[in-house]
Amino acid sequence: MTNKTESSDHFKHFCGVAGIISDYEVNIPEMLFYPLFALQHRGQESCGISYKRHGRVTTYKHLGMVSSVLSHYLKEQHPSFLGIGHVRYSTHGGNKLENAQPVFASTNKGEIALAHNGNISNSEAIRTRLMDEGSIVQSTSDTELMLHLIARSRKKDIVDALVETFNQCEGAYSLVIMHEDTLIAVRDPHGFRPLVYGKKDGMTAFTSETCALDVLDIPFVRELEPGEMMLRNRSGSTTVQFAKSTRKSQCMFELIYFSRPDSFHFGVSVHQARKKLGELIAEAEDIDCDIVCPVPDSGNIAAIGYSVAAGKPFDLGLTRNHYTGRTFIQPIPEQREFNVRMKLHPIAAAIKGKKVMLIDDSLVRGTTSQTIVKMLRDAGAKEIHLRLSSPEIKSPCYFGIDIPTREELISNRLTPSQIASHIGADSVRFLGIDSLKRCVSNPGDFCYSCFTGSYPFDIKDPAKRRKN
Amino acid sequence: MTNKTESSDHFKHFCGVAGIISDYEVNIPEMLFYPLFALQHRGQESCGISYKRHGRVTTYKHLGMVSSVLSHYLKEQHPSFLGIGHVRYSTHGGNKLENAQPVFASTNKGEIALAHNGNISNSEAIRTRLMDEGSIVQSTSDTELMLHLIARSRKKDIVDALVETFNQCEGAYSLVIMHEDTLIAVRDPHGFRPLVYGKKDGMTAFTSETCALDVLDIPFVRELEPGEMMLRNRSGSTTVQFAKSTRKSQCMFELIYFSRPDSFHFGVSVHQARKKLGELIAEAEDIDCDIVCPVPDSGNIAAIGYSVAAGKPFDLGLTRNHYTGRTFIQPIPEQREFNVRMKLHPIAAAIKGKKVMLIDDSLVRGTTSQTIVKMLRDAGAKEIHLRLSSPEIKSPCYFGIDIPTREELISNRLTPSQIASHIGADSVRFLGIDSLKRCVSNPGDFCYSCFTGSYPFDIKDPAKRRKN
Amino acid sequence: MTNKTESSDHFKHFCGVAGIISDYEVNIPEMLFYPLFALQHRGQESCGISYKRHGRVTTYKHLGMVSSVLSHYLKEQHPSFLGIGHVRYSTHGGNKLENAQPVFASTNKGEIALAHNGNISNSEAIRTRLMDEGSIVQSTSDTELMLHLIARSRKKDIVDALVETFNQCEGAYSLVIMHEDTLIAVRDPHGFRPLVYGKKDGMTAFTSETCALDVLDIPFVRELEPGEMMLRNRSGSTTVQFAKSTRKSQCMFELIYFSRPDSFHFGVSVHQARKKLGELIAEAEDIDCDIVCPVPDSGNIAAIGYSVAAGKPFDLGLTRNHYTGRTFIQPIPEQREFNVRMKLHPIAAAIKGKKVMLIDDSLVRGTTSQTIVKMLRDAGAKEIHLRLSSPEIKSPCYFGIDIPTREELISNRLTPSQIASHIGADSVRFLGIDSLKRCVSNPGDFCYSCFTGSYPFDIKDPAKRRKN
Amino acid sequence: MTNKTESSDHFKHFCGVAGIISDYEVNIPEMLFYPLFALQHRGQESCGISYKRHGRVTTYKHLGMVSSVLSHYLKEQHPSFLGIGHVRYSTHGGNKLENAQPVFASTNKGEIALAHNGNISNSEAIRTRLMDEGSIVQSTSDTELMLHLIARSRKKDIVDALVETFNQCEGAYSLVIMHEDTLIAVRDPHGFRPLVYGKKDGMTAFTSETCALDVLDIPFVRELEPGEMMLRNRSGSTTVQFAKSTRKSQCMFELIYFSRPDSFHFGVSVHQARKKLGELIAEAEDIDCDIVCPVPDSGNIAAIGYSVAAGKPFDLGLTRNHYTGRTFIQPIPEQREFNVRMKLHPIAAAIKGKKVMLIDDSLVRGTTSQTIVKMLRDAGAKEIHLRLSSPEIKSPCYFGIDIPTREELISNRLTPSQIASHIGADSVRFLGIDSLKRCVSNPGDFCYSCFTGSYPFDIKDPAKRRKN
Repeated sequence: MTNKTESSDHFKHFCGVAGIISDYEVNIPEMLFYPLFALQHRGQESCGISYKRHGRVTTYKHLGMVSSVLSHYLKEQHPSFLGIGHVRYSTHGGNKLENAQPVFASTNKGEIALAHNGNISNSEAIRTRLMDEGSIVQSTSDTELMLHLIARSRKKDIVDALVETFNQCEGAYSLVIMHEDTLIAVRDPHGFRPLVYGKKDGMTAFTSETCALDVLDIPFVRELEPGEMMLRNRSGSTTVQFAKSTRKSQCMFELIYFSRPDSFHFGVSVHQARKKLGELIAEAEDIDCDIVCPVPDSGNIAAIGYSVAAGKPFDLGLTRNHYTGRTFIQPIPEQREFNVRMKLHPIAAAIKGKKVMLIDDSLVRGTTSQTIVKMLRDAGAKEIHLRLSSPEIKSPCYFGIDIPTREELISNRLTPSQIASHIGADSVRFLGIDSLKRCVSNPGDFCYSCFTGSYPFDIKDPAKRRKN
Repeated sequence: MTNKTESSDHFKHFCGVAGIISDYEVNIPEMLFYPLFALQHRGQESCGISYKRHGRVTTYKHLGMVSSVLSHYLKEQHPSFLGIGHVRYSTHGGNKLENAQPVFASTNKGEIALAHNGNISNSEAIRTRLMDEGSIVQSTSDTELMLHLIARSRKKDIVDALVETFNQCEGAYSLVIMHEDTLIAVRDPHGFRPLVYGKKDGMTAFTSETCALDVLDIPFVRELEPGEMMLRNRSGSTTVQFAKSTRKSQCMFELIYFSRPDSFHFGVSVHQARKKLGELIAEAEDIDCDIVCPVPDSGNIAAIGYSVAAGKPFDLGLTRNHYTGRTFIQPIPEQREFNVRMKLHPIAAAIKGKKVMLIDDSLVRGTTSQTIVKMLRDAGAKEIHLRLSSPEIKSPCYFGIDIPTREELISNRLTPSQIASHIGADSVRFLGIDSLKRCVSNPGDFCYSCFTGSYPFDIKDPAKRRKN
Repeated sequence: MTNKTESSDHFKHFCGVAGIISDYEVNIPEMLFYPLFALQHRGQESCGISYKRHGRVTTYKHLGMVSSVLSHYLKEQHPSFLGIGHVRYSTHGGNKLENAQPVFASTNKGEIALAHNGNISNSEAIRTRLMDEGSIVQSTSDTELMLHLIARSRKKDIVDALVETFNQCEGAYSLVIMHEDTLIAVRDPHGFRPLVYGKKDGMTAFTSETCALDVLDIPFVRELEPGEMMLRNRSGSTTVQFAKSTRKSQCMFELIYFSRPDSFHFGVSVHQARKKLGELIAEAEDIDCDIVCPVPDSGNIAAIGYSVAAGKPFDLGLTRNHYTGRTFIQPIPEQREFNVRMKLHPIAAAIKGKKVMLIDDSLVRGTTSQTIVKMLRDAGAKEIHLRLSSPEIKSPCYFGIDIPTREELISNRLTPSQIASHIGADSVRFLGIDSLKRCVSNPGDFCYSCFTGSYPFDIKDPAKRRKN
Repeated sequence: MTNKTESSDHFKHFCGVAGIISDYEVNIPEMLFYPLFALQHRGQESCGISYKRHGRVTTYKHLGMVSSVLSHYLKEQHPSFLGIGHVRYSTHGGNKLENAQPVFASTNKGEIALAHNGNISNSEAIRTRLMDEGSIVQSTSDTELMLHLIARSRKKDIVDALVETFNQCEGAYSLVIMHEDTLIAVRDPHGFRPLVYGKKDGMTAFTSETCALDVLDIPFVRELEPGEMMLRNRSGSTTVQFAKSTRKSQCMFELIYFSRPDSFHFGVSVHQARKKLGELIAEAEDIDCDIVCPVPDSGNIAAIGYSVAAGKPFDLGLTRNHYTGRTFIQPIPEQREFNVRMKLHPIAAAIKGKKVMLIDDSLVRGTTSQTIVKMLRDAGAKEIHLRLSSPEIKSPCYFGIDIPTREELISNRLTPSQIASHIGADSVRFLGIDSLKRCVSNPGDFCYSCFTGSYPFDIKDPAKRRKN
């Protein structure tokens, strides 16, 4: 139940990364296939790997899903010690292969391949400066800019050069880097995005989420600390705290929607956090219902939490068709309602004549919800109350989420009761920020800026294009 | 939540059909795309359509899913009055395009295209007789045999020829037939497989399930009666009861597993029937548990029913990765455990230290369950009790289900308690047949032969190969 | 220099066949790849093979060229004793996979796969009779009809049944048949199409042309006689003369255009015959020229013959681009001139200010020639005299050539001098039939009906559709 | 007759370029398709285009041939004023998409797309310097390096920056550049590779050869001068002589083998030059023969020249199969003989018992010739005398030809008479350099370094890897 509805009214995730180093030769491309497959929910547009064999780096990346792009590696042998991989999110643009990752370059620091999850919020300034200084920029990705900074650093030591680079980059970056024979993992000082590592039998793996370690059967050790850079080669591993401790700003949406429910990071189980969100909605509830239904699959776990806390029966009032394939992956905007109808179907027998408490994770444009409410109404629901397991989204994210413009965000235009009448629901309520904070034990370590508009630091170029 | 686990330990569905006729020209191929897409769960190997334009029949069929094989029809215009379509189930064999449907042939009764869901149990005898009489048989499908019988009938009238044909065919057949300008739908006298129809604005559609009418927004009229043949052309429609009423033998597995939960047939909502199955398991329960978890997605609804009836919390102890694509669709047998692990993941946070009531629909070979139980155990479940919403499967099906041999069926080798110890569960229990019968109001109208070995009629060639 | 210009104004070839049987196991699919690849000029639309392994027949056929459709067989091992293959010509229709060959069927005579080069001129009557008798016909190919006749024969012995079948078929058929463990090759009583065989090391191969034996390095033994059926299994080979000797009617166009120049059949080298045709044109020439230029590649060899006989220098006044790929394979009619221009280019340096004797094999619609003459004129040719190495084509072929309608044939509408002014040439001349007959030593053994309209036997259904 | 034998024993061409600018909107991608298709013989590995629309540059490039990669542009409309394109040669490496062209980058001089034919002989030094200065290098192509140099130039004006760039680049470069709204064409000071331009109706096109202008029906104006840079935008065109006149070093192999015979450059018709080469071989001949046969298609025109000059009949003793497709495009070395045999076939009827004068353009490794001579011998040739229309190749090329190592070059290991006995010919002779020079009127303007080892300037890094 981890699929994300491509055509739905959700945030877009940005990316997922994985890196593996082994003391003995293994089939690195195959070893990368599994965690990337497990991270597919973090990006479906393109995927790729870089690995080292006989001293040469091979990079293979392509538009498409892991199971098709990289499947040939399940049959081929590429004995190797070291490699990194990446999945990239889905946009509606054209041929974006030039933005696929890992990005590989030869530099004066040696050969470097880099895979990035996140977003550099001052990248426009960096890009302009680099171009002023005579660099050529071949993509629109932040990742290429980082390689430029590493290459341009006067520091001869790679660690020094990396630290100098990161000191220039503001924003979110969970990175895996292949530099010569060393695997390097980096998490930005605010820790916006998750990055975990595990070890087993002379093998170390870094992945965006623990679910990607699980599929390798590599035991989780711990999350990288914000501002931590870990280096691992065949001589061993070292860790560098390259930035002073700042306030953590872990992305709350990783818990609300992005991460897979079986993952554990930011000190919490994603599944438990989502269930808690459902309980917190129920706690504030004052409207009675006959059944609690999720919008599948994004509302599933919160709906379970709500059901238990409210003592109301959980049921599936909507079923989801997963056989969507490529046809519906790149819809034109007018097709949104069509796409929703091809994916979600009301189960009249479950909802007819019922007061339905409908649980979803968030409301972005409100388009999908409108279609869903109409379907449920047509199928005979007596009342439809929509509850969101997140607060109203009002501000852009500069740290790795592809958010619509302020104008497109429905919560900037309408109050909850106006939204209810706009989408045809009997009521619409969002989780309050105070309630949201109660779903974790360390609420001060999280970023709430898409709800509050208050960012962890001053964003210098708020008009910048969204990218990477 | 309607996806079927290709690689899992489930029965294979056989097929789905759809036929549309309109009084005015519409884009028939596009009109067929939607119901076939909605019926994809009934068959993923191949799909195809036949439609009539300017007096000529065009047939297009290919290996693959509806969303890729037929997607070009969403962009092209083929104004037409009449067409039929088919989805075919997934086997592990090679190039099986020759068995794809619809099957089209020129005959002395005119041009006929036929799409078939079901299985003719005396097809070997028919095939042998036809070959003895000088027919050539180009596929292994029953569908081609039916065309031979129609062509060989001495009856000049197509209706008479069809009746003569069906009188020779024993077994299951829900058919849509395009004969010249007439759309014909047929359901066998036992009514093994569903076949429904709907009408709207001068348009009539026949589909395997109501979910395929819903996606066309065509209101459901009724199910075809067993032994009913309905003909519809531009002059109107007629219905023929071609066989005397026999005892209905509707497939219980359509309710337990095959059909989509939002469908309604055999006089019952599939969703409600599944929920009732869960309640009936709970009713017979004497073991306590902390949580009720489904094997997603096949156990979802029964688990909800169990949870409500038992007053125990429903939770998702397993999450499912839907991004499987083609890689895993044709697994080699040894890969079964691998495939399960790539698709299903335990959520430790939900199950650790818990007594888990695990709900699935059926147990065929038991291979998947073994892997699942191990995963849950490794994730910390304290106890694991597996409950199946169907009785023990002990006999082959001759009516459209691709069932393993008797020897492969775990229930022919082991008792429930032996199964429990074989798969590592603390207990395993099946729904009793008497309980099963209580999930519908008309239990006498159903077929239970895969549980009982007692067939609705004498199977003449029990050793026949399983096929189409 | 054997490529045929798909988009050009030429007859379409119909097919090529190959069959191989071996006393010891070899990789039959790979062994079939080579001769089919060598016969690609006889058909580019689809190709396929049937082979026997472990007692089971596998048939694989697909739209496309041999080098792409069958290339995987170069890497896979399928040890086998027996198989047949087919290449089919290119039409401009849509998905014609149902007409691809070999055609395989189960019959009361056993399992039979058949590959056919030729055309049955009374197939409509056979088809109607078969349908009247209750057969279903699933394609528009003559090949399927032959299988019906074999199956319907009351003769129990396969040889008797085949003889009975062929006695009902008028027209052209060079066949390879796989029946159980026997490979059978058949050439019709008139011998319209070539069919040769070779032997080596316990292996026997039948192919449409000797060039397909050469690529296997299997020495040519002889051509099958008209009316001969040869059977070869592991016990040995037998030959049956199933039809009384009639007048041979070997297709003259096989020598003029269809066959590959390195092939040898009908008692003559194709290359030598074409060169002789050029000499015969020159013999009748009374116009002086500066250079002799072929239309590449169809006029190459005749131009050499002309050059030598006339004592005039041969030169390449046109060059040909072979990188055409799929884009231009299925042109819309308006694109004909465009396609010619993308393929053929004048070499101004060779022709500027020259009197050019331009040699091609035949004139069908005259469209290509018009474009070519214009290109040469624009490039500075002083005079352009077009000579064809065949007589005027005025009548349809019922024996395996896809010829335009009478109205489309330019020689039915215009005299040579009218053609000259229509296409812009200074003169146009065809080889006379009497001259044509002089290119072989046995002119009485050939068919000239497309030139004369006088057929070897009475065509019963002259209005029949062209097919297979 | 312009196809190059991929698998054959020939030099590899490096690339072809095209650029078009128009005063009014045209479908630039379609306008680029035709010249690139006409230049396909210069590179078959990948192709691509960059064009400008609504102020945005779109770059589309892919592995594959023009007719498949760019064919969709024949159906789509992309109204535009300006674009460039590139075809790249075939290597046997893996995924080389990162080296496909045009290369596009954002720089401080604006957005630049660049397509390059040639090779920078001091690129290793440039690459090292750039990396030392902090540049990242993402491909192995010289083209990317040029973009770096342009970006790093302190000159603000693009023309000045380009001149500064070219002053640092030694070697061969015929370039088309899209800079903002200007199309720029550049030919290096030695003029190694051709680059021509044509004009018509407010449209200017630059292409590698005149055959690419012809297909656009744009009249040829002139060749760019060595050291000339021509700029064309909507205000008009200017030309800059950026380098002092040095000795021209036009590649003799463009005439001998690379260019299409209908092209005209270096002041000569390619067809006429090749014919002259044949005459020059004949002039030095002292061995009698019965027929003159080319190795198709590379020896065709020289063989015609020889035939005329020697008064010996030209004939086709070998035929060529052009239906090779992808299968044989990337052969493993052991398959060389196999590939030759699948492509070239002896015509026994033409050569049996004959003394054959066999004409080809050059001898690199000698592998293909060995197979050909054996085939002719087996087919009955009495004597086989191989004549090459070029001198012995003994030295690497640093100016755009992918030449084997010195050790692989057969002429570095064997004398002509040793070669004859090695490949099984009765005699082998090369054209003398003095004779070669007589095929043009301005022999001093050509480069002969692959024959002589004497380069137009000092090569600083002779050990450099071959690339681009």
